[in-house]
Amino acid sequence: MTGNKGKKPRGLAGFAPGEQAGLSVILGAAAPLRLDCGAELGPFTVAYQTYGALNAAKSNAVLVCHALTGDHFCAGDNPFTGKAGWWDLMVGPGKPLDTDRYFVICPNVLGSCYGTTGPRDINPATGEPWGLAFPVITIRDMVRAQAMLLDHLGIADLFCVIGGSMGGMQVLEWVVNYPERVFSAIPIAATSKHSAQNIAFHEVGRQAVMADPNWHGGAYFRHNVTPHAGLAVARMAAHITYMSEAGLTRRFGRALQDRDAFTYGFDADFEVESYLRHQGITFVDRFDANCYLYITRAMDYFDLAADYGGVLAKAFARARARFCVMSFTSDWLYPTAESRAIVHALNAVAAPVSFVEIESDKGHDSFLLDVPEMFAILRGFLDSAARQRGL
Amino acid sequence: MTGNKGKKPRGLAGFAPGEQAGLSVILGAAAPLRLDCGAELGPFTVAYQTYGALNAAKSNAVLVCHALTGDHFCAGDNPFTGKAGWWDLMVGPGKPLDTDRYFVICPNVLGSCYGTTGPRDINPATGEPWGLAFPVITIRDMVRAQAMLLDHLGIADLFCVIGGSMGGMQVLEWVVNYPERVFSAIPIAATSKHSAQNIAFHEVGRQAVMADPNWHGGAYFRHNVTPHAGLAVARMAAHITYMSEAGLTRRFGRALQDRDAFTYGFDADFEVESYLRHQGITFVDRFDANCYLYITRAMDYFDLAADYGGVLAKAFARARARFCVMSFTSDWLYPTAESRAIVHALNAVAAPVSFVEIESDKGHDSFLLDVPEMFAILRGFLDSAARQRGL
Repeated sequence: MTGNKGKKPRGLAGFAPGEQAGLSVILGAAAPLRLDCGAELGPFTVAYQTYGALNAAKSNAVLVCHALTGDHFCAGDNPFTGKAGWWDLMVGPGKPLDTDRYFVICPNVLGSCYGTTGPRDINPATGEPWGLAFPVITIRDMVRAQAMLLDHLGIADLFCVIGGSMGGMQVLEWVVNYPERVFSAIPIAATSKHSAQNIAFHEVGRQAVMADPNWHGGAYFRHNVTPHAGLAVARMAAHITYMSEAGLTRRFGRALQDRDAFTYGFDADFEVESYLRHQGITFVDRFDANCYLYITRAMDYFDLAADYGGVLAKAFARARARFCVMSFTSDWLYPTAESRAIVHALNAVAAPVSFVEIESDKGHDSFLLDVPEMFAILRGFLDSAARQRGL
Repeated sequence: MTGNKGKKPRGLAGFAPGEQAGLSVILGAAAPLRLDCGAELGPFTVAYQTYGALNAAKSNAVLVCHALTGDHFCAGDNPFTGKAGWWDLMVGPGKPLDTDRYFVICPNVLGSCYGTTGPRDINPATGEPWGLAFPVITIRDMVRAQAMLLDHLGIADLFCVIGGSMGGMQVLEWVVNYPERVFSAIPIAATSKHSAQNIAFHEVGRQAVMADPNWHGGAYFRHNVTPHAGLAVARMAAHITYMSEAGLTRRFGRALQDRDAFTYGFDADFEVESYLRHQGITFVDRFDANCYLYITRAMDYFDLAADYGGVLAKAFARARARFCVMSFTSDWLYPTAESRAIVHALNAVAAPVSFVEIESDKGHDSFLLDVPEMFAILRGFLDSAARQRGL
């Protein structure tokens, strides 16, 4: 792993609204982006990073889609966290997404707080952050913005679009809405729609944020505060869903934190309590509360089959990509059954699809972690697709 | 189901601290209760209800142990909720816990807010509610207080001790600490220890309460406020763990709440959001925030084998009861594996034990619901135990 050795992370506060880290482009100035909610957005900024080089035929582009709280620094140094990029194990020279071979593009999603326009950024109509005046966006809107980025970069089609979790949802929207632009597609630990339980957990998080008096109806920027306590609780609840019961037991069990006996109080007696509190506290330094509301909402609204009479296979009818669908045994957020439903729908339209369920006790977050089987399978699938593509 | 038709529930606010609903007794005046934390408590109040009549031989007493937010009104009218008691399907004439046959005693647990002494009650040393000055209690402490209640009632031993969830934890403490006083024991949807994931979810709830500025370090009673927003979030998170993914999908799926389309906002667009918000809002009318901290802490501290070198079978070495252990297929809070571990430990000491895993998609809360198979099995087990007991 690389990383910013000795560099202090700038966190989110280290970047003013509208300040860019990495590459960025202003899009939608001539023709705005028409969102699912009916509003039009433009001009707007898309922040992104690229890794490797585009070949002369422009046939080696890989789009990496990030998850809920991710950013465009999937590899190398990440200025927000001061650590290596969130998929540094996956993206780089000689890695599964081999940047000696592929041109990797990783955009920050619409609605996020890392450079692509979202609620934290300045609303030109008011000169202050959008806050809740920002239009509610969908996963499809995120993908529309990405397609505009590709147009700007002069890339007609993608060798591959890949992502885990919410990144996988974007992959699915790509193959449905831009079938002619996707040669291969890899949705990992994903789902074709948010379940009632998925929505319920997100709603708990949103209510935690909105219950914080510092939230001020989304206008905390006017009060020089942030709803950090509520956002930390939201993150703690979410974080449990990213791990598995077995993984928590293996890692923490009932071990006590720096003590030999219960304190009979409300300190973090248990290691798992201390760990969770740390997850909550550090999260508020790197994410914006309103952005959390918007992106969780986009995920809850996600239902790929909704415009196709609820029949997922119909959504995939025009898809041309070859697919590698991947899930993890201990992922209870988007369990293997969700991936299987995607595979069955792809089978129904005779799409070429590989499906692998990987044994892991690391839960949903497995897609971000060092899971050698995942890397090996991706290498194999990408090699095969590259041969088919003539790369 | 019976119920207070037309009666307005008094809620928790309808009862002043120390005011009793139902029966109550002051215990520990002569000799205080020595708690696991080392503190002594006494005198203290135990609120309880009884149903049916004690026979002349005093051999037909059944102790019903309630769960986290339960109370002593397991049957008939419940003055706190204005509804039928929480186990009205189970307790009454002709019901599985047949009050024509058994003398049912249901005490409110130590640390609760329904009459038995807890953080909401008046600390005689200060004249104001205990708040965080209340000693941290354990499940074993709850059971010690129950044993003192039985002494007061002149009941040497119990025909049966039964309870679900935290009630099941009390059942297990009974057979381990008072083996000579328990003839039969029925832990339902229980566990012998809280897992890292169990602790994690409780910690999220506690942090939600403690993040609410109205909590005031537990001294909200001095400010004439309650941390209702934080407590509602805590309840929402907990409530998800009481249901199953399949149950949520069956009941709510992605159905919208009183609308045909997304509002593209942060209202409760989905039924499941509206349902969860309702669960949170109504909970704060019937439960005290500090009590929630204390009782979740007691559950997190629960580890039956801890005093026996971590070997559960050793904890059961002196148990004399016949057991009926019950779990539910979709309970992911205390999954069947937890009940199986209890059964295996009982097998290891050759204790008589029946074990049933009941098919249900209603999750952990199945033990509170109309699950005919559960009732049928309990009838059979209790009939058989009653014959052995000569009832």
